[in-house]
Amino acid sequence: MQNIKERLEALREAMKQQRVAAFIIPGTDPHASEYITEHWQERVWISGFTGSAGTVVVTQKAAGLWTDSRYFLQADIQLKDTGIDLFKAGLPDTPSINAWLVSVLKKGERVAVNPEMFSVRAYAEMSADFEVAGLELVPRDFLKMLWHDRPSLPIEPFFVLDTEYAGRTVSDKLAQVRAIMDSHGADVCVFSALDDIAWLLNIRGTDVDFNPVVISYAMVEKEHCTLFIAPEKLTAETVRYVVSNKIAIADYENIYSALKSIQNYSTVMYDGTRLNRALYDAIPASCRKIDVLSPVQRLKSIKNETELKGIRQAMLSDGVALARFFIWLEQNVAKGHLTECDIMTMLKGFRAEDPHFMGESFGTIAGYGSNGAIVHYAACDETCATLQLDNLLLLDSGGQYLNGTTDITRTVCLGQPTEQQKHDFTLVLKGHVALARTKFPKGTRGSQLDILAHQFLWQEGLHYGHGTGHGVGHFLCVHEGPQNIRMDENPTVLEPGMVISDEPGIYRTGEYGIRTENLVTVVEDETNDFASFLKFETLTLCPYDSNLIDVDMLNQAEKDWINAYHKRVYDNIAPLLNKEEQSWLKLKCSEI
Amino acid sequence: MQNIKERLEALREAMKQQRVAAFIIPGTDPHASEYITEHWQERVWISGFTGSAGTVVVTQKAAGLWTDSRYFLQADIQLKDTGIDLFKAGLPDTPSINAWLVSVLKKGERVAVNPEMFSVRAYAEMSADFEVAGLELVPRDFLKMLWHDRPSLPIEPFFVLDTEYAGRTVSDKLAQVRAIMDSHGADVCVFSALDDIAWLLNIRGTDVDFNPVVISYAMVEKEHCTLFIAPEKLTAETVRYVVSNKIAIADYENIYSALKSIQNYSTVMYDGTRLNRALYDAIPASCRKIDVLSPVQRLKSIKNETELKGIRQAMLSDGVALARFFIWLEQNVAKGHLTECDIMTMLKGFRAEDPHFMGESFGTIAGYGSNGAIVHYAACDETCATLQLDNLLLLDSGGQYLNGTTDITRTVCLGQPTEQQKHDFTLVLKGHVALARTKFPKGTRGSQLDILAHQFLWQEGLHYGHGTGHGVGHFLCVHEGPQNIRMDENPTVLEPGMVISDEPGIYRTGEYGIRTENLVTVVEDETNDFASFLKFETLTLCPYDSNLIDVDMLNQAEKDWINAYHKRVYDNIAPLLNKEEQSWLKLKCSEI
Repeated sequence: MQNIKERLEALREAMKQQRVAAFIIPGTDPHASEYITEHWQERVWISGFTGSAGTVVVTQKAAGLWTDSRYFLQADIQLKDTGIDLFKAGLPDTPSINAWLVSVLKKGERVAVNPEMFSVRAYAEMSADFEVAGLELVPRDFLKMLWHDRPSLPIEPFFVLDTEYAGRTVSDKLAQVRAIMDSHGADVCVFSALDDIAWLLNIRGTDVDFNPVVISYAMVEKEHCTLFIAPEKLTAETVRYVVSNKIAIADYENIYSALKSIQNYSTVMYDGTRLNRALYDAIPASCRKIDVLSPVQRLKSIKNETELKGIRQAMLSDGVALARFFIWLEQNVAKGHLTECDIMTMLKGFRAEDPHFMGESFGTIAGYGSNGAIVHYAACDETCATLQLDNLLLLDSGGQYLNGTTDITRTVCLGQPTEQQKHDFTLVLKGHVALARTKFPKGTRGSQLDILAHQFLWQEGLHYGHGTGHGVGHFLCVHEGPQNIRMDENPTVLEPGMVISDEPGIYRTGEYGIRTENLVTVVEDETNDFASFLKFETLTLCPYDSNLIDVDMLNQAEKDWINAYHKRVYDNIAPLLNKEEQSWLKLKCSEI
Repeated sequence: MQNIKERLEALREAMKQQRVAAFIIPGTDPHASEYITEHWQERVWISGFTGSAGTVVVTQKAAGLWTDSRYFLQADIQLKDTGIDLFKAGLPDTPSINAWLVSVLKKGERVAVNPEMFSVRAYAEMSADFEVAGLELVPRDFLKMLWHDRPSLPIEPFFVLDTEYAGRTVSDKLAQVRAIMDSHGADVCVFSALDDIAWLLNIRGTDVDFNPVVISYAMVEKEHCTLFIAPEKLTAETVRYVVSNKIAIADYENIYSALKSIQNYSTVMYDGTRLNRALYDAIPASCRKIDVLSPVQRLKSIKNETELKGIRQAMLSDGVALARFFIWLEQNVAKGHLTECDIMTMLKGFRAEDPHFMGESFGTIAGYGSNGAIVHYAACDETCATLQLDNLLLLDSGGQYLNGTTDITRTVCLGQPTEQQKHDFTLVLKGHVALARTKFPKGTRGSQLDILAHQFLWQEGLHYGHGTGHGVGHFLCVHEGPQNIRMDENPTVLEPGMVISDEPGIYRTGEYGIRTENLVTVVEDETNDFASFLKFETLTLCPYDSNLIDVDMLNQAEKDWINAYHKRVYDNIAPLLNKEEQSWLKLKCSEI
């Protein structure tokens, strides 16, 4: 096994032979995934840095890792003695990767990337940036030659998600996709995003953490559909399923030859934010290429009745697990030895009692006190705090169930809250409720609604910088598009059946963090002479910590909404609990 | 004088000679103006239709006028016996102009427009639309040959707006524009929008209604600036002013030859939404052309301290005029003979008492009862209503003062309001106040704030379809960009010094209309660890009709804001009124 220095040396030698002055190694994969399987962790291999975000750049004389403030400490430790410098991204004096390269390279020199790791659009933008500065971007897969003991791709079998859960058959979905292809005059549509393929073909797997996707590609033509997948992943049953749905099977790597064989002058549709550049380059030059939002993105975002029914059931399962977890926490926290990691484990255990539970939907964020103020905090052995009885606990977690995906954040007070904590919590809650109870005309975009969640904080000079809401899959990725609720513009309009989170927060560095998150779905409201209105139905079923509510800050409509919500939580969850648990829930759902 | 039929016949003959199958005549001018001087009213000449919006299309066999619902009645009357059919734009069964042309013309046929009347972008979009359908768009100025008794362009002298009012000298402004040109690498920047030129050169005029602009073009180069203007408009004084500011003078029509003479391979900057296609075509083909927002647009939108001081003074003048007008109205309406037109005249008279008054900033909208529900209602002799004592009066008006432009809407009840009227008025007021009192971080766009004004209406299934806020010039156009507050996305961020309206409304067809409008300006608020905040300062000074407020629908913060606003109105306006007027204002500004 080489050490990092030897790996860098081997890379530099290969770069020299190919007259490449700089090589950029990002933390991505060929499918534009959020979670990356070990096989593609090229940046970890070259640098030893294991954070979830970071890009390494290597030149003959220097090497650097760009990562954000979450990982400054970890990177400092992991980069020791590697010869790789830490570039603290986001600080005013830190140059961007492109700016740094322009400053250290000479005009005419070449920068390389593995084109599998960059989307068509990201590659084009980078290439244009470098061209202006007199540098040239070239595709090179150096690590293919250098990383000899690279872990294999996962070969675990995938499974079929029954129509009982998926609600629509593959042939229905293919017909929908082909109708969209027709509207663009497309002969071929290439799918590389793993959740697109899982949704389209009603398959799920265990290839990466948290997202139940199957590593594969898919190509849809007018009469054919092909799934590109490692043969080891197939079983007699899944082959029967795939073939009986008139889908051809090809080896995973054959996607390249299949693209190369597309008939000349065909029209090929792809999503330039997700298709990687290497695949794009395989499409014959004669083809007309149209870069549009993946047709599955919008279809997948609008849940069908079966999916919604399943999600509502998953919310019952999640609500029961959360109630039991919070009862356990209240009974045990006073003993004084529970850590953030302990409660993460226990929470997963309560969820796992449900027969539909398939795993967590992301790494739980359990932040006690000042740890709660770190927005993407992940408790690990070194930083893990022991819960005391004098601060807030922010708990953001979710489950993957066969019938749906959940994502919920509750902030609870261990001990007695301060006035400031109650004030902050209630400002966040007012925003959360304002968004949950709004009505809006058809055609409204998430960016128009965002201020409902921010407004009460802004009015007092407070702010949170993360998004207010993200789309959520149906037993798929907990973060999915195309809709969201953010300050940034996103042209996607909210449509009935979309599922989205409602999660304002406030973070006081060194003190505590507060976030309150439910999932909601868009439903029809009245249509009259003025407009056709939509509204949200809240899906998540778990009480807010009333100890943290300053009731005097709420108006009647807000109190009514919270009381009605707590009543609905009790009415739905109580029948699934034992007597003792019911009493606890009754208390938590008391009128305010 | 020809009649309409003869004009159409002459046009068709000219079209035939040029092998043009259809000619489109819009209601625009070469400067993309909102108000059009007679010389350019080509659509009025060809059709006799005098509404403010409408486009005529002529083929050999047919002719049509497309206009919106405001003008259906008027168009019916004015088009009688002309052979021109009315196409009611906005109705579901009415084809668009382009769709209609595609349906009546044969592939390969040619459609013509006068390229002076279409912006570069509008022309390009239309051309692309036609190309897809197999038609060809060609530039032709048929009316130049046919309209013999065309009115001349206005030749009234313009005047200089003193730096005492403008706040910045022409050389300061030219330096700002040249800095922006440098940042784009531009050698030349062409200005055709009349308010751009008026602001840049600190000149004002009387060439069109309501907008104090001067018909001209301007071309800014690194070392030179040229004003293209009819020589008749110059006086010894203005020539001295222009020349002493190192600005060359050329005849208005010479803009074409000047553009043609731009040095080959220069970089020319223009605003494709405002520069007309004929001017664009005059730029040498070898030049690099960059289509960006006019640099004056943003500069002009951010008022300097002198402009803001002037606007605040104009608001005092306007507040006094409005107070006196409403006193007069209260004293005279009960007599039962006042019409909407009468009060428009009286209101103008009260404004004209101020020495800085230069005219109205747009045609007053005075809508009593059901007329108030017609959003762009313009009282004219046929429809003018007599005010009774049993409904609401919506009054939207504004003044041009040497030191600023005003725009205000108040809705008042003549008689006793119904519960529904009070409820509606208070919903609108709540939205108006929510927008006025919001704080928001730097970088916020108007589309993010729009819901603050809409939210209380939406919550009850009500809606208004017009924009919530438009930019306002400084003694310039009452509608100016680039900022606005609308449901549609606009990438412009709100910046300190911008002036914008806050005008939600509700319109019940056949019953009444309600709109409440103030102008506000963006000002700095606190900067802290969370963000840098901005807020609005309300500029308009005129009480709301408290008789229409349902106080029970307001929360304490809203009541506090309204009371503080009324106190500010009284404190600022009362010292400018006589004793009797002061008592009236005191009553109107009483605490609620």
